[in-house]
Amino acid sequence: MSSPDLQLARRTERLKSSLVRDILAAAARPGMISFAGGLPAADLMPQLPLEATAAPALYQYGTSEGEPAFRTAVAHWIGETGLQVTPDQVLALAGSQQGLDFAAKLLIDEGTPLLCEGPTYVAALQVFQLFGADIVCAPLGAEGPDLVALEHLLATKRPRAAYLIPCFQNPGGACYSAAARVAVAELFDRYNVILIEDEPYRSVALDVDHPMTPICSLLKRAPWIYLGSFSKILWPGWRMGFLAAHPALMPHLVRLKQAADLHTQRPGQAAVAHWLNSDTRGRDLERLRAGYRVRRDAMQAALERHFGAIADWQMPRGGLFFWLKLRGELQATRAMLDRALEQGVAFMPGEAFFAQPAEGHQYLRLNYSRATPEEMESGLATLARCIRTAQDLQSRPQPA
Amino acid sequence: MSSPDLQLARRTERLKSSLVRDILAAAARPGMISFAGGLPAADLMPQLPLEATAAPALYQYGTSEGEPAFRTAVAHWIGETGLQVTPDQVLALAGSQQGLDFAAKLLIDEGTPLLCEGPTYVAALQVFQLFGADIVCAPLGAEGPDLVALEHLLATKRPRAAYLIPCFQNPGGACYSAAARVAVAELFDRYNVILIEDEPYRSVALDVDHPMTPICSLLKRAPWIYLGSFSKILWPGWRMGFLAAHPALMPHLVRLKQAADLHTQRPGQAAVAHWLNSDTRGRDLERLRAGYRVRRDAMQAALERHFGAIADWQMPRGGLFFWLKLRGELQATRAMLDRALEQGVAFMPGEAFFAQPAEGHQYLRLNYSRATPEEMESGLATLARCIRTAQDLQSRPQPA
Repeated sequence: MSSPDLQLARRTERLKSSLVRDILAAAARPGMISFAGGLPAADLMPQLPLEATAAPALYQYGTSEGEPAFRTAVAHWIGETGLQVTPDQVLALAGSQQGLDFAAKLLIDEGTPLLCEGPTYVAALQVFQLFGADIVCAPLGAEGPDLVALEHLLATKRPRAAYLIPCFQNPGGACYSAAARVAVAELFDRYNVILIEDEPYRSVALDVDHPMTPICSLLKRAPWIYLGSFSKILWPGWRMGFLAAHPALMPHLVRLKQAADLHTQRPGQAAVAHWLNSDTRGRDLERLRAGYRVRRDAMQAALERHFGAIADWQMPRGGLFFWLKLRGELQATRAMLDRALEQGVAFMPGEAFFAQPAEGHQYLRLNYSRATPEEMESGLATLARCIRTAQDLQSRPQPA
Repeated sequence: MSSPDLQLARRTERLKSSLVRDILAAAARPGMISFAGGLPAADLMPQLPLEATAAPALYQYGTSEGEPAFRTAVAHWIGETGLQVTPDQVLALAGSQQGLDFAAKLLIDEGTPLLCEGPTYVAALQVFQLFGADIVCAPLGAEGPDLVALEHLLATKRPRAAYLIPCFQNPGGACYSAAARVAVAELFDRYNVILIEDEPYRSVALDVDHPMTPICSLLKRAPWIYLGSFSKILWPGWRMGFLAAHPALMPHLVRLKQAADLHTQRPGQAAVAHWLNSDTRGRDLERLRAGYRVRRDAMQAALERHFGAIADWQMPRGGLFFWLKLRGELQATRAMLDRALEQGVAFMPGEAFFAQPAEGHQYLRLNYSRATPEEMESGLATLARCIRTAQDLQSRPQPA
């Protein structure tokens, strides 16, 4: 078969080979210790209510919006965060990534300015860039964005929408303070910026000392899309997520769902609704969080041993990641990756999480939810050695 | 909450309220006899292999391409059609509608000329139009397109791609002859048109007297995407489909899958792979087809009784629909819909299936797979009365 002369849509030029895909492929090799991915701990998840998925009534096509039982249960679940929505405002998704695809279709023309956090979720960057967004990054601290910088960007770049992950941000681990949430909502109302608020990690809260009211619930004027996922707490292989949205956006989003895949698979909706309505939900989540706390603390201890002298970080209060900034003048963490992979350790270099990769050169992201304590100990020792070697090479005089 | 001042992407202006959605909503009202939708007969489907979906290994995230077992089983399944593909050329989809979304993202810029059959699948039209395609329709007969008209369109409109449903076309019921398949492949090779071949109904073949070799397998030069669905034979509520593609397109399609929803739910892939590898597959399909044949024949008999004098049609040799052309000078079938719905009968007016709605005014599509014989009898009698009434109104002199 000869190689064809391909004429594709312009957007495919922005569909670059993904560094992240390549790393995850390498990380899946046998014997590799991987801190690279974001796989949750499937062994901490509740058992699937299989009988709820078995009803022959679920064989037939369903509705684009989702099952009434699912939408009702999810509306209650969202309400517990402080964001009050009706079931009519809920759309069942095949994972919350699908909500990013719909947000991009709904909001982004080629060249549309879109505000993100810097750093931000890599697969969100990919889909927004695929649709041609002009990404503007607001610098992010541990308690939320720099508000002066944020307002300056809103005033000068006039983004149509903003994409935020205010709870245990991926990759940085930031959790917006109560005050930051109020301030950001006021700014978005003032500049009429549509908010896409993504909360995959809300239920993986390990130590939280302030209310995490969704920013969507604080908006008075600006429209919003709220994205949620069950993939960190319930069977990610089943691909179950949801969005809730301002009523003015819902009709568009339902049509986008219909055009994308008609509707979300019904057995997964039944299983999630069953769990949401179950007596065991609170216990299941406590058990999950307790397991994550043990792993997070083990990672913190191993990092202190091996990275205490070469990097800075804040212990994450939730979510699945540590975000480290290496000290000193160094080559980019990306350049250390090949050596680390050779030595059997995978991590995610910081550049993947920025629209401008150079902003991430000093950073690396380490997942703590998959490795055993032994793997953490030996994997982090190896990784630290790789970094020290890179530092030595860097500081050695170059041959003339 | 005040109604916001919405700035959305330009494509949302093409995301019109769907006539089809409105009709299906009306058709779902209690007591309605519906010939409108395309719901397959869930009662004829094999039992779900529930135990195959239950493995805790399926809880975790999977790969964007799909499960190896699914891709291998589907590659064999596709091979039985005459199209030889490797598992690497197979991508698991959340239903074949998702393949249309990916084809649109891959191929369509605003204004890209795209060839479709006239009439064609309404939800394909929707997604292609959402992405801004300039739809060009090739007139379709019972055995395939008018080849002279097709070549004229290829030469003058230079479509980048073509979307065809060569087996038991929805809505028209056409099944391309062996000669038409060869001729179309030669034309697409000559004009280097990327073929999107959609085959949701291949397994619902009731009376076929010629090979239905996929056109993709006859192409020598032009790239192609082959879409398949399990929704007509296995549990559509589980949303399982697939695509296979020319090797040059696969890397793009896998990245589009990752950006759209990371991957297809794994338990559904496991269930389908289990069925594809099962001993009962042949018997299951024979039972399904036998059930459809009974319903199709009952519909044909009822149509002959009630529509023999007012419409023309060909009995479908497969698929789920009858496609009727009303005789005489009439108002559009769309205009008869409200009266029919009032009388408790739903159908799909022809205009929904054309890029230029006027081309469909004389047509209506009737699904035969859901109604009981009693519902067919009374529903078609009512519908024929509605049409005769419309004819009488039409032929009556207008008041001065």
